[in-house]
Amino acid sequence: MEGRRLEKERDIDDLPKNEANYTALTPLWFLKRAALVHPHRRSVVHGSVQYTWLQTYQRCCRLASALSNHSVGFGSTVAVIAPNIPAIYEAHFGVPMSGAVINAVNIRLNAPTIAFLLEHSSSAVIMTKAVNVIQKNLQYAISKGAIEYENFLESGDPEFLWKPPQDEWNSIALGYTSGTTSSPKGVVLHHRGAYLTATSNIVGWGVPQGAVYLWTLPMFHCNGWCFTWTLAAICGTNICLRQVTARGVYSAIIDHGVTHFCAAPVVLNMIVNASPQDTILPLPRRVHVMTAGAAPPPAILFKMSQNGFRVTHTYGLSETYGPSTICAWKPEWDNLPPETQAKLNTRQGVSSSALEVLEVVDTQTLRPVPSDGTAIGEIVFRGNVVMKGYLKNSKANTEAFAGEWFHSGDLAVKHPDGYIEIKDRLKDIIISGGENISSVEVENSLYQHPMISEASVVARPDNRWGESPCAFVTLKEGVDKLDEGKIAVDIMKFCRAKMPAYWVPKSVVFGPLPKTATGKVQKHLLRARAKEMGPVNVSKL
Amino acid sequence: MEGRRLEKERDIDDLPKNEANYTALTPLWFLKRAALVHPHRRSVVHGSVQYTWLQTYQRCCRLASALSNHSVGFGSTVAVIAPNIPAIYEAHFGVPMSGAVINAVNIRLNAPTIAFLLEHSSSAVIMTKAVNVIQKNLQYAISKGAIEYENFLESGDPEFLWKPPQDEWNSIALGYTSGTTSSPKGVVLHHRGAYLTATSNIVGWGVPQGAVYLWTLPMFHCNGWCFTWTLAAICGTNICLRQVTARGVYSAIIDHGVTHFCAAPVVLNMIVNASPQDTILPLPRRVHVMTAGAAPPPAILFKMSQNGFRVTHTYGLSETYGPSTICAWKPEWDNLPPETQAKLNTRQGVSSSALEVLEVVDTQTLRPVPSDGTAIGEIVFRGNVVMKGYLKNSKANTEAFAGEWFHSGDLAVKHPDGYIEIKDRLKDIIISGGENISSVEVENSLYQHPMISEASVVARPDNRWGESPCAFVTLKEGVDKLDEGKIAVDIMKFCRAKMPAYWVPKSVVFGPLPKTATGKVQKHLLRARAKEMGPVNVSKL
Repeated sequence: MEGRRLEKERDIDDLPKNEANYTALTPLWFLKRAALVHPHRRSVVHGSVQYTWLQTYQRCCRLASALSNHSVGFGSTVAVIAPNIPAIYEAHFGVPMSGAVINAVNIRLNAPTIAFLLEHSSSAVIMTKAVNVIQKNLQYAISKGAIEYENFLESGDPEFLWKPPQDEWNSIALGYTSGTTSSPKGVVLHHRGAYLTATSNIVGWGVPQGAVYLWTLPMFHCNGWCFTWTLAAICGTNICLRQVTARGVYSAIIDHGVTHFCAAPVVLNMIVNASPQDTILPLPRRVHVMTAGAAPPPAILFKMSQNGFRVTHTYGLSETYGPSTICAWKPEWDNLPPETQAKLNTRQGVSSSALEVLEVVDTQTLRPVPSDGTAIGEIVFRGNVVMKGYLKNSKANTEAFAGEWFHSGDLAVKHPDGYIEIKDRLKDIIISGGENISSVEVENSLYQHPMISEASVVARPDNRWGESPCAFVTLKEGVDKLDEGKIAVDIMKFCRAKMPAYWVPKSVVFGPLPKTATGKVQKHLLRARAKEMGPVNVSKL
Repeated sequence: MEGRRLEKERDIDDLPKNEANYTALTPLWFLKRAALVHPHRRSVVHGSVQYTWLQTYQRCCRLASALSNHSVGFGSTVAVIAPNIPAIYEAHFGVPMSGAVINAVNIRLNAPTIAFLLEHSSSAVIMTKAVNVIQKNLQYAISKGAIEYENFLESGDPEFLWKPPQDEWNSIALGYTSGTTSSPKGVVLHHRGAYLTATSNIVGWGVPQGAVYLWTLPMFHCNGWCFTWTLAAICGTNICLRQVTARGVYSAIIDHGVTHFCAAPVVLNMIVNASPQDTILPLPRRVHVMTAGAAPPPAILFKMSQNGFRVTHTYGLSETYGPSTICAWKPEWDNLPPETQAKLNTRQGVSSSALEVLEVVDTQTLRPVPSDGTAIGEIVFRGNVVMKGYLKNSKANTEAFAGEWFHSGDLAVKHPDGYIEIKDRLKDIIISGGENISSVEVENSLYQHPMISEASVVARPDNRWGESPCAFVTLKEGVDKLDEGKIAVDIMKFCRAKMPAYWVPKSVVFGPLPKTATGKVQKHLLRARAKEMGPVNVSKL
């Protein structure tokens, strides 16, 4: 009987892979397919420049060919330092079609940081904002000189016979974490995960074939949450914005027929707080917006919804290929008051269809916390859309993958409906008198204050309680900023009506908030400022 | 320099897989996710029986648990012989959750054929239409007796800790080709391909989250083209039809809010030819229909479109997980006359997003045919949605995978726009005087004849030309069938106006067409009948 069972197993499970039934998963085929199916459809529009999918495919083939001619291929990294222009879109295909890895660099970083990244990534070629291509020597200094991008493309073959990767685990992209902490880490992503996230973006958001997509999100930010590749899968149209302004967003919606865009919460804030002359309402059609990054305050989601935008809230990290959780909308929310809807929608939600396991675990025991909406734990991931690891950083890899989970560093609760909600970054939580205070919840309340445009709350040393909340706020345009002391008192009073007394910020500081290139508030800078202010004394209360 | 290059390669490409960043692709997670995200949404509706996603998940866990308790797991095959009832839907998850392979058996086969399949598949357990579960002894005869399905589920644990497959190449399903040819072959599919096709069904057809899907297609037919798993990925609702009738389809659209269904062309034929009392028009909403199988005649597509259905035409085989090509709609077709649209839409189109390479190759050289719309070659596939192989049939595997392609056995042309169009099955092509006659094209013309409801054309031996076309036709209801000779002459005259003289059927035979369980016309039976009729003589003309 044992023998019989073994024979049976061999029959049904040992049919081997062959050339016809197995190939590496990669999003590169999506581009070839788009060029075949919709050769004349607009692929990328940037001002007066526009290409069709056939043109984009041929330009990507040329890029891959030209890179190959310069000995760039498997094992090479190509750095791209550019805003959202056609060249960076093309690099997302042309570079991996040559076998190399694309390293899209945040253009808002300062020169020493960019120099560090280029050194750390060992980039063989740099494509810069000025649309030039530079081949570097082995000392990673610019030496061989720059080649103008269009000339470089011209040197390549539009019929280049690119090959898919030998292995879908091969790297497709390298991206550096945006540096809310001190040293950037190089996140390495593979073809398999890029394919799966490009697809789950479509499944979760319901993006139809041919959608017109507006780029407010920089493509250098986690490869535009993998939407670079998603757009080829749906044969859609990429609309590039020269400058991300409210006026620019509304104009693109009118002029280009935009149906979808992704945006950091800071962009949503900009849209809902835009002046009437920069606002074009009503929208000519339903516009779908995906947001992620920090939790958008409910007040902003509510206003977006009032303006006719349908906001889908997702969450993820560069380490999880961008959006890997989604606050999936439930029909039973349809009849709730809009404010309640907005509050439910600020939660980070559930796993995307591509993420196998999402959990919130106790930081000590790594056991799942109860789904009670109050127990706080760390968000952890397990599955195919988790990065390969950090480049040349085994210490960080050991920490990130401890206990067979990928650790997000974000603290959350799990609600009775299974949806998770971020309460804070592991390092942003404020511990006052031994009690946890969620800086995010305090911020959400502050956003409801009629004078406040932006708010960020961090821990300030406190002689009595160890730490206490310190609020940094930006006031709305038009608010009289002369009497800040009075406004601060009003804000504290406003908070006392909404939260436990020990959560109320003991200090309120006015002024613009320091932000990363992607619009994340740099809390480590605010923490440093709060520390410089010295400890809160009891007498001050 | 070489050493430096090698070190670099290791850095960027040798970050290994670990428990947190790699797991086997499988559609099973979709079910767990649906139960978490939409626990109270209807999952499966069958008459008065309906379940929610939480219930379906728990029932599938119970099934997997109960099977495990009976020593069914990795290496086992479970045969399911049932129409579209909740139990067969549950088996698509519960069986692989136990580690076993689901073998959904065509219920319309005769007893000896089913006995052959059960023997050939070495099925350890049989779930039958009467919703019983039978464990078989090693002689594959029913011996241990049947267990009523609900009692069997009751014995299982709703919290069963199922595991994803160790390897995504592990088999998930076994299905026997429907037997338009003599001996059924067992097509083995893996978890990876099931995941990818479940997803590409969504990407290509633009299926939104929560779609209401009507089952006209049997789930035993290629796992319902992988829509069994697609429905869990979109957290949609499965509506089971007790009997596939036009009235049933229209009623389900009204009563259950159906938005999508798949159907063989024979079902579309039934819908457009339904009597007024079985037709409920106008439709309360746009209904999306995916069809595949045989090429639907343009006349039927045209009528469907007039009735408000949006028909997406796909093509594939059991060996390619169902739909692996799609006739992707182009906006430039929107303004064409409806008849032209229908004609363009009968083409098999382009690869689905999950199929990496689709080609039409010369049957001798295996080189791609030119995209000229006239050169005929065989449709071949290469990619991740091609089967593992045929079970215990190395001869068939060698033939199917010859030359690093999977061979469909279908003959097609490639049009200048890259879309492929089937001209015939390799074995259905009629060769008359050395010239190829596409039986499909002759059939398409016959479908335009006002009296014809169904038509199938095969080769009949011909003393002068070797072979000549013989048409088998079914007349529409209400047509006076008394003067068949006169109608035959009229049909031939009709054809002469539409095609080369040597394509015109030299014989017309009236009566119902023999069909497989999935509605495919069994041309081998018609060929046998045409042969029995004896050769066409010149004098007969």
